[in-house]
Amino acid sequence: MTAAHTITVNLGDRSYPIVIGAGLLNGGFDLSKFVNGPDCLIVSNEIVAPLYRDRILPNLAGKAVTTIDLPDGESYKSVASLQAVIDRLVESGANRDTTVIALGGGVVGDIAGFAAACYMRGVAFIQVPTTLLAQVDASVGGKTGVNHPEGKNLIGAFHQPQVVMIDTDTLKSLPDRELKAGLAEVIKYGVICDVEFFAWLEDNMQALLEKEPPALARAIQRSCELKATVVAEDEHESGHRVILNFGHTFGHAIENCQGYGEWLHGEAVATGMIMAAELSGIGDGDVERLRVLLQKAGLPVSPPAIDGQDWLRTMGMDKKVKQKQLRFVLLRALGDAYLATSYDKDKLQQIIGASD
Amino acid sequence: MTAAHTITVNLGDRSYPIVIGAGLLNGGFDLSKFVNGPDCLIVSNEIVAPLYRDRILPNLAGKAVTTIDLPDGESYKSVASLQAVIDRLVESGANRDTTVIALGGGVVGDIAGFAAACYMRGVAFIQVPTTLLAQVDASVGGKTGVNHPEGKNLIGAFHQPQVVMIDTDTLKSLPDRELKAGLAEVIKYGVICDVEFFAWLEDNMQALLEKEPPALARAIQRSCELKATVVAEDEHESGHRVILNFGHTFGHAIENCQGYGEWLHGEAVATGMIMAAELSGIGDGDVERLRVLLQKAGLPVSPPAIDGQDWLRTMGMDKKVKQKQLRFVLLRALGDAYLATSYDKDKLQQIIGASD
Repeated sequence: MTAAHTITVNLGDRSYPIVIGAGLLNGGFDLSKFVNGPDCLIVSNEIVAPLYRDRILPNLAGKAVTTIDLPDGESYKSVASLQAVIDRLVESGANRDTTVIALGGGVVGDIAGFAAACYMRGVAFIQVPTTLLAQVDASVGGKTGVNHPEGKNLIGAFHQPQVVMIDTDTLKSLPDRELKAGLAEVIKYGVICDVEFFAWLEDNMQALLEKEPPALARAIQRSCELKATVVAEDEHESGHRVILNFGHTFGHAIENCQGYGEWLHGEAVATGMIMAAELSGIGDGDVERLRVLLQKAGLPVSPPAIDGQDWLRTMGMDKKVKQKQLRFVLLRALGDAYLATSYDKDKLQQIIGASD
Repeated sequence: MTAAHTITVNLGDRSYPIVIGAGLLNGGFDLSKFVNGPDCLIVSNEIVAPLYRDRILPNLAGKAVTTIDLPDGESYKSVASLQAVIDRLVESGANRDTTVIALGGGVVGDIAGFAAACYMRGVAFIQVPTTLLAQVDASVGGKTGVNHPEGKNLIGAFHQPQVVMIDTDTLKSLPDRELKAGLAEVIKYGVICDVEFFAWLEDNMQALLEKEPPALARAIQRSCELKATVVAEDEHESGHRVILNFGHTFGHAIENCQGYGEWLHGEAVATGMIMAAELSGIGDGDVERLRVLLQKAGLPVSPPAIDGQDWLRTMGMDKKVKQKQLRFVLLRALGDAYLATSYDKDKLQQIIGASD
């Protein structure tokens, strides 16, 4: 194991560490000290469990472990999967001092976290994310939930983990398409609040695509730092945290209209970021710079064919809607996002109309 | 309308008022000022809606109102009902600034509150309880949730309302059996923390059973004050709040083993309180005093026939279990409850064995 790096998410009595390093699985980091009760449930999926479940057991010495494997994919991020996890907790005699551990990508983390939030009105939760997307996004900030047929993450809770353990070695097994999808969220952090990081990504995209460990470690660490800072200021998204949603209003609509799982979340967000950048009215040069970086990362930058009415209906379920009005996170410039109280309605029609 | 009385539940930025009075419906109290967004969903049931839904509309002037009526009864306090409420929110285009209003008894309040807690990770919530049980218990303290086939309230959240409006006139329509069930929780407050209130109940039980308005108003007000004080000290039940659970370990087991809805919650709690008092080892005179008061209120004081193993299995799902050990709220004396770290195991066997 190489030296691990720890980032603290500062949330008062809900503060927790994110530990990042290579070789943390196989007992490289003691998770059992974060498991207060005698037992835990590991929630994973049919793809990740065969790869990593045996390797997490040495991190949980002395604890009784039960397991459940969900089917893989965003389309299973449903109330039915939530119920399956709850049923498994009941079957195994889990109590309020049981800990739920998510081992997998964002879908596993979101379902497991929501189950932990609801079971007996809240039990402890640990995240061990194994995809880049989950490592830089889903595992930080406490958002949990499942999808409703009409909208993404419509049912959920804020529930902070005890600890997040990121073993960067898990990325070795990650399919290229998922690596790229994770890079979309990494790029997002640069776009919304750190133009220097954006420039670093422009210089290092090739190294990231080739999974060079130092580049990946830096990208993950900086992304987690940026997200942790934003979340610490506004845990429940009553204000500034909403900038993390940049590109997501369009992105969620794409995911919903195409059917969950057709486009990966990161792919939809990549295209959504271009659409939001266009709506922002920043200079064409900056939109182009973003487009080039996303393309370099192998991500789509044009939306699929979706009817204008479907765009508006699905975006109407966005959690930022207030007084029945759509609201968008827009850019003042690269590295400077804000929640806009108004936007250019003609331009919006033009942007979504172009996808008809 | 007579003068309303307001109790504040002190929970920092989640503090809220409980407004108690006769004639608050029919526009006697302005609820719309607690509805921040443009719209609300009234969750009720097929029994309560025909009686009171038209009467709450004048309290919501200027707000768009949609409605859903659930089937009546504890057996419908399920994930399926939760989903029905979520579906209705989605259908009606509800957003994060929509308010969910519970109009009904404890079941309606628990489901509606949990839906409000989960929808878009939390929207605002108002309680308008119409049963005595809901007025003195379910509407105060922010516990929401639904049942799992294996245990009561196993899936839920803490979610505080914006306001609780108790119109004591609604009790005029309450069936006697439900009135009595509510009195079980009223008696509980005396037993656990206010022996003077217990004595007042001994003197005034007949007036309460005859629904005399001043007696009912005093019982509701004192119960809400006592619960509000306990909850303010320990919102998430990490300590002293657990005394509110007196009688509930046995009571929940009765409800679960008999099938939800067979015994009313208050009836099960009444019997559970006698069992817990017996386990406490307080003087026989005090147990007898409690038994007499419960009987005066027309409540059952002997458990149904339940196998000893079933008692232990269902009590094993209790939320107070820690390190796989049962824990009970017991009495040092009438008016003085505490969470016991140990208990007389032979006596427990004798108490549950007697019901075989």
